[in-house]
Amino acid sequence: MKDTTARGSRARSIQVIGIGAGSPEHVTAEAAAALAEVDVFLVADKGGAKDELVAVRRAICDRFVPAGHRYDFVTVPDPKRGPDTQRDSAQYAQGVHDWHSARTDAYVRIIEDMPEDAVVGFLVWGDPAFYDSTIRIVDAIGERIPTTVRVIPGISAFQTLAAAHGIVLHRVGEPVHVTTGRRLVQEWTRAEASGLTLGTVVVMLDGHLHCRELATTHPDTLIHWGAYVGMPQQVLRSGRLADVIDELAALRVRLREEHGWVMDVYALTPF
Amino acid sequence: MKDTTARGSRARSIQVIGIGAGSPEHVTAEAAAALAEVDVFLVADKGGAKDELVAVRRAICDRFVPAGHRYDFVTVPDPKRGPDTQRDSAQYAQGVHDWHSARTDAYVRIIEDMPEDAVVGFLVWGDPAFYDSTIRIVDAIGERIPTTVRVIPGISAFQTLAAAHGIVLHRVGEPVHVTTGRRLVQEWTRAEASGLTLGTVVVMLDGHLHCRELATTHPDTLIHWGAYVGMPQQVLRSGRLADVIDELAALRVRLREEHGWVMDVYALTPF
Ligand SMILES: C[S@@+](CC[C@H](N)C(=O)[O-])C[C@H]1O[C@@H](n2cnc3c(N)ncnc32)[C@H](O)[C@@H]1O
Ligand SMILES: C[S@@+](CC[C@H](N)C(=O)[O-])C[C@H]1O[C@@H](n2cnc3c(N)ncnc32)[C@H](O)[C@@H]1O
Repeated sequence: MKDTTARGSRARSIQVIGIGAGSPEHVTAEAAAALAEVDVFLVADKGGAKDELVAVRRAICDRFVPAGHRYDFVTVPDPKRGPDTQRDSAQYAQGVHDWHSARTDAYVRIIEDMPEDAVVGFLVWGDPAFYDSTIRIVDAIGERIPTTVRVIPGISAFQTLAAAHGIVLHRVGEPVHVTTGRRLVQEWTRAEASGLTLGTVVVMLDGHLHCRELATTHPDTLIHWGAYVGMPQQVLRSGRLADVIDELAALRVRLREEHGWVMDVYALTPF
Repeated sequence: MKDTTARGSRARSIQVIGIGAGSPEHVTAEAAAALAEVDVFLVADKGGAKDELVAVRRAICDRFVPAGHRYDFVTVPDPKRGPDTQRDSAQYAQGVHDWHSARTDAYVRIIEDMPEDAVVGFLVWGDPAFYDSTIRIVDAIGERIPTTVRVIPGISAFQTLAAAHGIVLHRVGEPVHVTTGRRLVQEWTRAEASGLTLGTVVVMLDGHLHCRELATTHPDTLIHWGAYVGMPQQVLRSGRLADVIDELAALRVRLREEHGWVMDVYALTPF
């Protein structure tokens, strides 16, 4: 619970609600109760193929908000984000920062137009603590207008992946490292060179199956992969990295064609 | 869903249910539905102070299992585990392995005595994918008797920690590393020496606040700490590591005295 009400005027109540990564079944009791308190849901509309993800959010509200409770669903067009190709961390961070500012402006304008006692809800895919910018944006909103913020955790995509495969992520006593496709190979190689095991490596935000670069040098790595985890289209594969990487790459292309978009996550266990 | 029914006799249905790390509010819709299907819950009874954790499990069943559904709650005395002091990984892994075997034996005997169509449930603290041995034990059970296994993810303690503090775990574009108190200092030091950032480091299973060893060398590290997260006794602290470590150490001793046990988790962000 964060509070930026020092400036006297009435604080806006904001709920940041983790809804799980695609399955309404993963909504927690706490999230369901919070959904029932929200008057206005603000949803970033990323346009195009991601419409389906907005649809999941609507389905969750339909299921968990009691019939008597009226709410609005405001989709906020997401400001355009520059291409995400820079390998340079500083440039990348600056790009993300500019994009967050533009989003903050858009949200502050909308919230200021609401009745002062309206409860604002952000529905966050998966868990708000992992690779999602809502909390940073809500913090930025709180610097501009008085707010009280409550964050509700949600089941992350990598947890749904692990459960669907029926696996534990850590090997006995070892760590679990969660990273992005962009950093995977560099981190893996550096850790190895220094005699450090990262443990099982969970990779999110990888549009290019960067693990391919490890398939020749580390063929025995075990991969547990999943697309659309928790959703009706869920597809799972696992095996020795060198054995399955070609199939995965082809499958990923095929799924993207079939559904118009694809979202996948995987865990690599070194051997 | 894993299936070891090849041997012909009727498979035992096992549900491995992540229940969150202390708050019944973190039970998901999927977990609630699974709870309602279970005939016999098997719960490891670790004895002593951990009774309270068994009580949380009972409270969850009372709340989510429909009144009409009868179920049994069988607490299985946990085999004694050797002292956990060996820093040597191989010895540590062997110790854990022996302990798992003893638990497997105990569970197989109990399951074999049940009616063949009884649904067996394991209630797992937090998320079954993180630092919990239930899935490994259920896999071992499946090697001895035919089973079909379903795993249901749960909110992990580190997610409850992050939500309670209202923070994201990753810094923009960076990884999140989840490890144990036992390994923290070695991993941190090695990663640094090799120019690798582990990102935010989440530490579980740390009975000794090993982060103290980093407080002089890395005083500006930011710590977000929580004990009994999600539970009525929840206590949160955060700050610059060098500033708060002494208070945390004293607080941890005090809480342990007051409640008879303490369970804590923290996240370190390097600066
Ligand atoms: C912007 S991040 C958001 C992560 C989210 N906060 C979470 O905790 O799952 C998006 C990435 O999460 C993963 N992801 C999210 N939902 C997924 C799903 N249903 N199936 C597979 N991957 C998913 C993918 O790696 C995707 O690139
Ligand atoms: C054996 S591990 C089990 C982790 C569990 N599977 C999870 O996902 O949270 C136990 C460790 O989890 C953390 N933990 C679990 N529940 C907690 C709570 N309510 N408050 C603080 N830490 C907790 C502590 O670090 C503890 O040493």
